[in-house]
Amino acid sequence: MSLSVEKTSSGREYKVKDLSQADFGRLEIELAEVEMPGLMACRAEFGPSKPFAGARISGSLHMTIQTAVLIETLTTLGAEVRWCSCNIFSTQDHAAAAIARDSAAVFAWKGETLEEYWWCTERCLDWGEGGGPDLIVDDGGDATLLIHEGVKAEEEYEKTGKVPDPESTDNAEFKIVLTIIRDGLKSDPKKYRKMKERLVGVSEETTTGVKRLYQMQETGTLLFPAINVNDSVTKSKFDNLYGCRHSLPDGLMRATDVMIAGKVAVVCGYGDVGKGCAAALKQAGARVIVTEIDPICALQALMEGLQVLTLEDVVSEADIFVTTTGNKDIIMVDHMRKMKNNAIVCNIGHFDNEIDMLGLETYPGVKRITIKPQTDRWVFPEIKTGIIVLAEGRLMNLGCATGHPSFVMSCSFTNQVIAQLELWKEKSSGKYEKKVAALHLGKLGAKLTKLTKSQADYISVPIEGPYKPAHYRY
Amino acid sequence: MSLSVEKTSSGREYKVKDLSQADFGRLEIELAEVEMPGLMACRAEFGPSKPFAGARISGSLHMTIQTAVLIETLTTLGAEVRWCSCNIFSTQDHAAAAIARDSAAVFAWKGETLEEYWWCTERCLDWGEGGGPDLIVDDGGDATLLIHEGVKAEEEYEKTGKVPDPESTDNAEFKIVLTIIRDGLKSDPKKYRKMKERLVGVSEETTTGVKRLYQMQETGTLLFPAINVNDSVTKSKFDNLYGCRHSLPDGLMRATDVMIAGKVAVVCGYGDVGKGCAAALKQAGARVIVTEIDPICALQALMEGLQVLTLEDVVSEADIFVTTTGNKDIIMVDHMRKMKNNAIVCNIGHFDNEIDMLGLETYPGVKRITIKPQTDRWVFPEIKTGIIVLAEGRLMNLGCATGHPSFVMSCSFTNQVIAQLELWKEKSSGKYEKKVAALHLGKLGAKLTKLTKSQADYISVPIEGPYKPAHYRY
Amino acid sequence: MSLSVEKTSSGREYKVKDLSQADFGRLEIELAEVEMPGLMACRAEFGPSKPFAGARISGSLHMTIQTAVLIETLTTLGAEVRWCSCNIFSTQDHAAAAIARDSAAVFAWKGETLEEYWWCTERCLDWGEGGGPDLIVDDGGDATLLIHEGVKAEEEYEKTGKVPDPESTDNAEFKIVLTIIRDGLKSDPKKYRKMKERLVGVSEETTTGVKRLYQMQETGTLLFPAINVNDSVTKSKFDNLYGCRHSLPDGLMRATDVMIAGKVAVVCGYGDVGKGCAAALKQAGARVIVTEIDPICALQALMEGLQVLTLEDVVSEADIFVTTTGNKDIIMVDHMRKMKNNAIVCNIGHFDNEIDMLGLETYPGVKRITIKPQTDRWVFPEIKTGIIVLAEGRLMNLGCATGHPSFVMSCSFTNQVIAQLELWKEKSSGKYEKKVAALHLGKLGAKLTKLTKSQADYISVPIEGPYKPAHYRY
Amino acid sequence: MSLSVEKTSSGREYKVKDLSQADFGRLEIELAEVEMPGLMACRAEFGPSKPFAGARISGSLHMTIQTAVLIETLTTLGAEVRWCSCNIFSTQDHAAAAIARDSAAVFAWKGETLEEYWWCTERCLDWGEGGGPDLIVDDGGDATLLIHEGVKAEEEYEKTGKVPDPESTDNAEFKIVLTIIRDGLKSDPKKYRKMKERLVGVSEETTTGVKRLYQMQETGTLLFPAINVNDSVTKSKFDNLYGCRHSLPDGLMRATDVMIAGKVAVVCGYGDVGKGCAAALKQAGARVIVTEIDPICALQALMEGLQVLTLEDVVSEADIFVTTTGNKDIIMVDHMRKMKNNAIVCNIGHFDNEIDMLGLETYPGVKRITIKPQTDRWVFPEIKTGIIVLAEGRLMNLGCATGHPSFVMSCSFTNQVIAQLELWKEKSSGKYEKKVAALHLGKLGAKLTKLTKSQADYISVPIEGPYKPAHYRY
Repeated sequence: MSLSVEKTSSGREYKVKDLSQADFGRLEIELAEVEMPGLMACRAEFGPSKPFAGARISGSLHMTIQTAVLIETLTTLGAEVRWCSCNIFSTQDHAAAAIARDSAAVFAWKGETLEEYWWCTERCLDWGEGGGPDLIVDDGGDATLLIHEGVKAEEEYEKTGKVPDPESTDNAEFKIVLTIIRDGLKSDPKKYRKMKERLVGVSEETTTGVKRLYQMQETGTLLFPAINVNDSVTKSKFDNLYGCRHSLPDGLMRATDVMIAGKVAVVCGYGDVGKGCAAALKQAGARVIVTEIDPICALQALMEGLQVLTLEDVVSEADIFVTTTGNKDIIMVDHMRKMKNNAIVCNIGHFDNEIDMLGLETYPGVKRITIKPQTDRWVFPEIKTGIIVLAEGRLMNLGCATGHPSFVMSCSFTNQVIAQLELWKEKSSGKYEKKVAALHLGKLGAKLTKLTKSQADYISVPIEGPYKPAHYRY
Repeated sequence: MSLSVEKTSSGREYKVKDLSQADFGRLEIELAEVEMPGLMACRAEFGPSKPFAGARISGSLHMTIQTAVLIETLTTLGAEVRWCSCNIFSTQDHAAAAIARDSAAVFAWKGETLEEYWWCTERCLDWGEGGGPDLIVDDGGDATLLIHEGVKAEEEYEKTGKVPDPESTDNAEFKIVLTIIRDGLKSDPKKYRKMKERLVGVSEETTTGVKRLYQMQETGTLLFPAINVNDSVTKSKFDNLYGCRHSLPDGLMRATDVMIAGKVAVVCGYGDVGKGCAAALKQAGARVIVTEIDPICALQALMEGLQVLTLEDVVSEADIFVTTTGNKDIIMVDHMRKMKNNAIVCNIGHFDNEIDMLGLETYPGVKRITIKPQTDRWVFPEIKTGIIVLAEGRLMNLGCATGHPSFVMSCSFTNQVIAQLELWKEKSSGKYEKKVAALHLGKLGAKLTKLTKSQADYISVPIEGPYKPAHYRY
Repeated sequence: MSLSVEKTSSGREYKVKDLSQADFGRLEIELAEVEMPGLMACRAEFGPSKPFAGARISGSLHMTIQTAVLIETLTTLGAEVRWCSCNIFSTQDHAAAAIARDSAAVFAWKGETLEEYWWCTERCLDWGEGGGPDLIVDDGGDATLLIHEGVKAEEEYEKTGKVPDPESTDNAEFKIVLTIIRDGLKSDPKKYRKMKERLVGVSEETTTGVKRLYQMQETGTLLFPAINVNDSVTKSKFDNLYGCRHSLPDGLMRATDVMIAGKVAVVCGYGDVGKGCAAALKQAGARVIVTEIDPICALQALMEGLQVLTLEDVVSEADIFVTTTGNKDIIMVDHMRKMKNNAIVCNIGHFDNEIDMLGLETYPGVKRITIKPQTDRWVFPEIKTGIIVLAEGRLMNLGCATGHPSFVMSCSFTNQVIAQLELWKEKSSGKYEKKVAALHLGKLGAKLTKLTKSQADYISVPIEGPYKPAHYRY
Repeated sequence: MSLSVEKTSSGREYKVKDLSQADFGRLEIELAEVEMPGLMACRAEFGPSKPFAGARISGSLHMTIQTAVLIETLTTLGAEVRWCSCNIFSTQDHAAAAIARDSAAVFAWKGETLEEYWWCTERCLDWGEGGGPDLIVDDGGDATLLIHEGVKAEEEYEKTGKVPDPESTDNAEFKIVLTIIRDGLKSDPKKYRKMKERLVGVSEETTTGVKRLYQMQETGTLLFPAINVNDSVTKSKFDNLYGCRHSLPDGLMRATDVMIAGKVAVVCGYGDVGKGCAAALKQAGARVIVTEIDPICALQALMEGLQVLTLEDVVSEADIFVTTTGNKDIIMVDHMRKMKNNAIVCNIGHFDNEIDMLGLETYPGVKRITIKPQTDRWVFPEIKTGIIVLAEGRLMNLGCATGHPSFVMSCSFTNQVIAQLELWKEKSSGKYEKKVAALHLGKLGAKLTKLTKSQADYISVPIEGPYKPAHYRY
């Protein structure tokens, strides 16, 4: 792999697919701005005072049109920004081009190899001599992971002189992480520790990344403050739920043009993402079967008229399989062998280990027929029939379509902006949550009811809210 | 008012409408048992060890068929039980008869006056010489309120010799409470304090009662431990949501036989209860408009395609109005005057102050035409048209129909049993929540997926759960 | 059986349950009038000219509140009316009382025996000396059947002297019909032929009755003109579909209070009635399985995400069974024996032969436990578990609830009024269909778009409609 | 315009975008075959006997992957085939390439000019010396129109020597038709009459084309037999309804990535296509408003909870506008000027005259910004805001996405094959309808119930169907 950073005429670094798509990207960014009232309100409210003046922000988050509006909100608020995608298939090249040309350093393109992916992540964190970023926007935690592993390796190296050994792991991707760190040690054995010193904190976008952060917090290994953006109501109950309700069928249609009505669809996991997926499939006319481990979620599925069974029960009868669990090893190659001809298998969870791609790729005699990018038919030799796997087992809504739509991402990203502001100001007021929803109501023509003083007193809340206790579930 | 307690041949006290309905009640209780797997599992698991042996439980909770199964679960576990309803219209007389004859002391009938209501509450708490109950099952907090007001009055009386003055309040119902306490002071000036001494704790069923408890906790006036059953996921996200989705249309149909399809329906409040109501009305073919104060809930409504406006915007165009806010003064008489002829106005929130019944009743020249019990047409003199008010502004699902169905009440009441067990054992393990859902899955034919050890480790949860952090919103 | 006709003070004949319920009936009739804009518009438009002056109308159609509004529309238009119910359980006694007191001769009460039912039908057709009615409103065709069988018997008797032999049939109900006719022959051997002579025609309300009429037409045995009201779009696609969508869950709730969410429900037949039932059950959270013979209807069910299987496949797994086929022998006693404990079995098709009640009643050792009227638990001796049968296998929405709501019946009944007007005027214009829908739009606040002349020409329709060819399916 | 026909190595004519896409086309055709059980069953049943041996079939119907499976079904049954698209944007170039290379003469590419479009139509009908096709598959009636206009012109020319004058019409497209015919007259003044002589008949696919045919039939100008495929239940109630339910959101998402949830959407027309569109939008979380001229359809919309208003009422409040009327002049430029910024305007009816594109294009100072092909933003000069028009006002599901999915097109196209077989065999049995549905059930795992002899007799239908009278509406 030999990649080289390019520079715009103004000297800003980038590496994207095709800078000439910047005009197209700009047009779509302008459309998206109209659909992202929360971010535009942040620009209007905070833009003039430039609260991020002097702040360096590195982001590792799907480099889409919506993310472009987020980036330009951060720059409007005064930040300097570097960005990479958090998934090899999720970049929209025209969005990356427009941002690279106009606003921030971008290292991202659709269809990176894993080596390229981590090269991009490194570039995104690399602010040159003065150490790393002040703030990180992370999605899935890969930027956070790289710094933590880097610091760990540097400390070990300083103590014992030992460098990380890529062969110590079976995980293909982690091999690459260790290689990068090992190679970095030679040139600068304090690189990641310098980063850590400068870093004010990270705001994490998704369930999976949050889970990693909690694990690190529990074991005492978390190196810097982190804000859990995922669990904002206006993120998890909107982006995860309504976003997936929109983007799952979008991905299925763009990838396969298959009619959803009449099909039997299996949704593995009935959390917020699974709820959105199941709702979309049911509404489109599929018969939906849910697999779950958690009896509460299972009972919720049943109350909506969905059958709850195990994958084994239905593997040979269903037409569409979607994993949403945030866990690993959900659909294994042995399941796939038992499926109907042209069953569609896809994942909408953050990481690509829900579907056993390794088992599939190494199945003796299996044949891969690429229908089009991100749509592959895999034929098993002994049965001559095959299944269709989307986005190579990665996030199908971003791999096969354009991810969540602008409006719902505006909710999520407004939380991100607020989290970044919080981190930067080291303040911790708690009044931002409702604001995110409020910023999105006007666009939809809603009119809120106002409490009278007497009503507010009666239910013991301030007139202007918050209206619910912290534990309220929405 | 001159009411007298009656006694069964075995000497147990009661006051019900008609003991001869006991056989009918028993048949329906038997049907309900099949639909209440959680309570039946409690009987199977805990019945033999009689954990409530020696415990006196007083319950103030709608005396329905489902509550009958709860009561007999408590007695199967060894408790001695006294019961009253927490709403003047919510008793099912055949259920009350069966329990009075077979299992517990019951003081409840459909259509109590307010004086009768509070007489029943007193009887329910009155265990004779030895003080009050060990445990209370409360719904809305009226039993809890009576004890707290009683203690307060006794302390004041002891200090100053002053007795409560019913004329000190405009609230018709609170007048009655003060009268009862005043009258009680004469015969036993330590009655409520003795109750408080004995009382181990209360488990509270509903949002409104929980709100009262939190208020008392904050002001330091809460006299005994309380468990918030309402906010169990398997209560608030099931009973409130799916229960109302079922019982709102049931109440509308039984009360008015009106076709819901094609109508414009306004749901005031989009919390769990409002969500269930809106879903039911939308699915039945109504066009639903939501009023909200909280932007998050408002945005949720919009994402489901519901319009969010103020009551004033739609008051003269809608056909059906439902209050679900848990707040007061939602639909005032001035609203009602502007409504279409035969607009239906009803409340499914716990208390009867969401609809301005006082304003309506005292409106000059207004005419009340009772179509049938709990269904009244009110005609305004100047316009000659009228509106239809259900259950006199009280809980319409219990006043006009039979409340929530057995299956979902089994979820709620299993939480109640567990809460009572907790209070009684003074233990505080936290593993009960999932259990409630799990106990209800078999009945619906669901099969849960099991985590592998490796999967469980990967997401850092025990194989047997809990699977979600405490803040997870389901 | 010894029944006697009673008379009002004005001399009009009747036989109802309790005339003192007339005030209650009147109040509900007044509510219904507001919900039946089509009928009220007929009164406004045709009332002054009394087009039915001199016409005698006999109706055999569920004697409900809605039918009361129909009857009083017919009398407002000048007709003299006699009425009976077309189902032993479908009368609403307060409606019958109000009509008997105020408007027409009524012979109907809830819970007739079969003998009483046919006695009522005879009374309804019996206009004294001058022969029978001029017009019949029939629902299911029983009035039509009685006249046809009567005429056949009279002709046979005249030719051969032979009277009908009730023992010639196994069908319990048809035995009664033959008995009535036989007994009538003695007193007046020309009674039914005189009826036939006078009769201008019949308008038939429902699928089942229409099928009978087509059969008679094909075999050349139909004795008088008949108008098929059922197949008006504003009947079959409204009453059958939206009416059942409303009244099926209503009947289930009133009869059993069972929670529909989470249950497995089987709908036998996916015609208009089946579509309405399946939609209601699905929306309430049940998992719905359809049985069908017709591949087109089956494919429609699949497109809505419903499973299509045979009854045998699912008989032991489902919780609720609804027959909607208009065919016989759908759920047999052998099916019922295999069902889960407390499975609910009900019929919403016109006749009571969809469920094998005879097989159930005569099953050796079977035990019937009446929970309440129209809700019976039947326990099989060998398995000790039982099923719940609603309305003894008859129309459960009328037996256990109040049938279809006023608004949708206004559509159906406006078609009836128009059909009766047509028959009476012996005209056959075809422009009435759209009118029925149009009369109902204002009530729901709809505003229609108007064609321009140029647009109308472009699609070759008159500006004022009709807009669709006769074969259009809506 | 200078277009030239190309030839494959085997000498078959074609004109497509890029023959090298044939492999990709073939892969997608193979996927589609699995989803088109009806067509594959036709191949299996009729393929061996080659019923179309000797028949020339010309098709004017969207040249998509699904149509490719239709074409190859026709060739498998023995036909020789020539094909063009019936819409300038609806061709899928890889499908055209695969068919051109492997199976039939194709003249079609995505993004034809109108001149190119009619050149393709001419080529499709041009079978060389021996006259035209034996059979036509038409969609919208353009091939039929060309022949009728051609014959008319030839007859006029023979009688009077006058040639058609393109300047005699304002309609830009009809100018081209007249030009083609005029130019053709010079080289062969009997060309269209020879075509007519040979032609056995046409089977017409869509509502709009059928309307044209009925108009010609009424005026006595229809020159050859025509079969109305559109009004097969398994076409109009499946393709129009379920097809649009699938492809409308697909087109919206691919063109604009806009979030549908929370938006206000206006559906003009509530026929089968409008019903499908409204269902899709409602289910995706939009608030849907319907415009209608027909009170029956309007009442159906209301029963589903949709508001019925005029376009004028909502033009400035809605976010998405879809025309489905099959009529002209629905959304005019004056409407568009009043819309919100970035309101989306699109058409899913067959012809492009529902939206006033001419008015828009010629609006003084209007600015067209092409976001990407088939997605244009039009900015009005005086208000500086604009609207987004999809597919230049043509069928947006084919212009912006890939049209209806294979499964539902299999229903439609199986009707086409049967219609073509009918025309060719000059038979007119009526038993095909049910067969189409039946052929699609196995794929979805349905099991039909079978009538017993006794049941069949009871409802007077043959055991094997048909089960419904001809007028039944499904």
